[in-house]
Amino acid sequence: MPDLHIDAARLQSELDHLATFTHAEPSPLGTAVTRVVFTPDDLAARAWLKRLATEAGLSIREDAIGNTFFRLEGTDPALAPVATGSHIDAIPHAGMYDGTVGVLGGLAALRAIAASGHRPRRSIETILLTSEEPTRFGIGCLGSRVLSGVLPPEQADALLDASDLPLHQVRTAAGFHGPLETVRIAPHHYYSFLELHIEQGALLERHAEQIGIVTSIAAPAGYRFVIEGFGGHAGALLMPDRHDALCAAAELVLSIERHALATGSIDTVATVGTCDVHPGAVNSVPSRVALQLDIRDTDPARRESVMHGIRADIASLQDRRRVEITESLVNADEPATCAPDIVSLLTDICSEHAIPARKMVSRAYHDTLFMARIAPVAMIFIPCRAGVSHKPDEFATTADIARGTLVLAEALARLAA
Amino acid sequence: MPDLHIDAARLQSELDHLATFTHAEPSPLGTAVTRVVFTPDDLAARAWLKRLATEAGLSIREDAIGNTFFRLEGTDPALAPVATGSHIDAIPHAGMYDGTVGVLGGLAALRAIAASGHRPRRSIETILLTSEEPTRFGIGCLGSRVLSGVLPPEQADALLDASDLPLHQVRTAAGFHGPLETVRIAPHHYYSFLELHIEQGALLERHAEQIGIVTSIAAPAGYRFVIEGFGGHAGALLMPDRHDALCAAAELVLSIERHALATGSIDTVATVGTCDVHPGAVNSVPSRVALQLDIRDTDPARRESVMHGIRADIASLQDRRRVEITESLVNADEPATCAPDIVSLLTDICSEHAIPARKMVSRAYHDTLFMARIAPVAMIFIPCRAGVSHKPDEFATTADIARGTLVLAEALARLAA
Repeated sequence: MPDLHIDAARLQSELDHLATFTHAEPSPLGTAVTRVVFTPDDLAARAWLKRLATEAGLSIREDAIGNTFFRLEGTDPALAPVATGSHIDAIPHAGMYDGTVGVLGGLAALRAIAASGHRPRRSIETILLTSEEPTRFGIGCLGSRVLSGVLPPEQADALLDASDLPLHQVRTAAGFHGPLETVRIAPHHYYSFLELHIEQGALLERHAEQIGIVTSIAAPAGYRFVIEGFGGHAGALLMPDRHDALCAAAELVLSIERHALATGSIDTVATVGTCDVHPGAVNSVPSRVALQLDIRDTDPARRESVMHGIRADIASLQDRRRVEITESLVNADEPATCAPDIVSLLTDICSEHAIPARKMVSRAYHDTLFMARIAPVAMIFIPCRAGVSHKPDEFATTADIARGTLVLAEALARLAA
Repeated sequence: MPDLHIDAARLQSELDHLATFTHAEPSPLGTAVTRVVFTPDDLAARAWLKRLATEAGLSIREDAIGNTFFRLEGTDPALAPVATGSHIDAIPHAGMYDGTVGVLGGLAALRAIAASGHRPRRSIETILLTSEEPTRFGIGCLGSRVLSGVLPPEQADALLDASDLPLHQVRTAAGFHGPLETVRIAPHHYYSFLELHIEQGALLERHAEQIGIVTSIAAPAGYRFVIEGFGGHAGALLMPDRHDALCAAAELVLSIERHALATGSIDTVATVGTCDVHPGAVNSVPSRVALQLDIRDTDPARRESVMHGIRADIASLQDRRRVEITESLVNADEPATCAPDIVSLLTDICSEHAIPARKMVSRAYHDTLFMARIAPVAMIFIPCRAGVSHKPDEFATTADIARGTLVLAEALARLAA
């Protein structure tokens, strides 16, 4: 294999430029990024990335949900291609490395392989996957879910954003036409799929290691709870007569926290990230509250036992506070196991380059969770400062990003050789 | 005194028409109204009311904050005028009677007095008071606070709405120009001030009485709490490492409820009506939550003792959850006592007309609370179904509205005679 060279300074400056496609208010903590799928910021960032790919001599394909495939042609186009990819969307007021490192790192890896003069046998693709974050349509990994057949096209097209616009309308307005049925990719189409990503935890930093080799990805689930109470005037409705939906929601939030802590495993995490109060006026007793729960575990059975405890609390809460609580499942996914031969390959590459690496579980979930349904997968983690993510002070060093990209490039080149 | 006649059908049809100036989504429960101050709906409603007043031969004056004075000239313009008034703004997804009954009832009373052929000695004014509801600028009774000198003009003009627009800019854009200093009205300018309003409680209905004569108005206070925790990725930030701002907010909501119930008095009410979560994404641990508290009591000392208990809980909450909670006072008002001679007059009128009436405390607060700083005041309550208010199913019968308007008209006529 030829030596591959990653231009670290260029990669960093591309990450810095990508971070300018945002509408987040500036933060003193770091570079704040808000980039919601199919907003003008997202579309402008995509246009810029396509220019980069064209300059690098890559071919480009976009599917009907906006997944974008940047391809370096191999010498034997009949062989299943090797792929990498990640996302560029960012939740409100997030950071500049989550997802973007995998997309720009993937492009840099393709450039490095092309520059090496050694044409790979298999084609190699870097995929920008649409809406890994659930911000707009309430469900994460939209692009990879539809691509892998986990989310049926008609169900995906009917998803509504906060303005009640269906995905079908939003993607069409953004320029992504055609039936979603065409998005699906058959199992075995790809020879393998790799994703480079920041760790979003502090394990690598704590152990002074530079690469994390992911062996499995925790199983996430999303639930929505709607608490219906009885509203009224904040001055006139007497305390004993109230069925305050926010007070009931407060009990539910604390119940969720209690049951997640009670498993005693650090692999159980449960988060209520949103709380919408109706009517939402200072002088009106809340009549309805909607909460969104994100619960994850490496063990789906343990995750279910936490939900069981929460549901028992809900039953007593409804009686005691005379409110009605409805639970709806947004998604409940299976954990993914990474392909042992790719994990070995990554371990070998790190050891050849004397890079301190550790095998680890990903508690955050990624598009790779869904790509695992159609291809052998693995993930490469790089350290991020203090494990901070989804915040403006999310940070990874240029050296760590370039090192991760080098490992990615070597793995892609060997898989495609 | 001549007999006064209220055209009940006309008054009802005017209330129905006023309810069409709204952007609330329709509700199966009743007529939903959202009419926020200085929005196009509010301005259109004001324009229509001015046409009504002009048709009734009333003169019109608007001040710099949009308080609008509809005046029936007396025979002796040198005497202090008698006034009534209320508001037309409505919180999001509220009903069609709160405030509006007092404004349209006030206009109907002036028409009835004018039609009686008996010119009053004192002039009589019906005042549309700006933004009784705190929806837009976070503080209720904006118009009457500035008019009565309770809220300094420079402080009022600097109030910000949710889009960070200052009141000064918003009122100017709405057509209300000039310095707010001109809004203030001197004590003794008005001979008396009366307000007709729905009860927003169920006492009249429960006792089958038709008129409530308010003897005092409870003292409201508004606080804002900001809970600063530490955010992060919902998958990666482990449960024991969290300082979740929403979990802390949930404890605070329950603490507030507990302390309000603990006074054992039905006159203590405390409501958390809003809960804003930052960053507000399903897969992000809440880093900051803002709550708004509305707390009222007929006894300001008891209200303060509830706050004392809440603050003790906050201190332990901050330690235990490693969050920072800041409290800021939005407003803390004194209760108002109604003028005994006007209360007697109202009692006499009800008894002459054989209307079953009860003296009562107003737990909701009203513009009258502030008008009490500059004039002798009283309030007339009419029943509303099941005490429901601030919701689309808020309801008062045409007969009750007309009866309350008749009592108002008689009182205004006698005070002005």
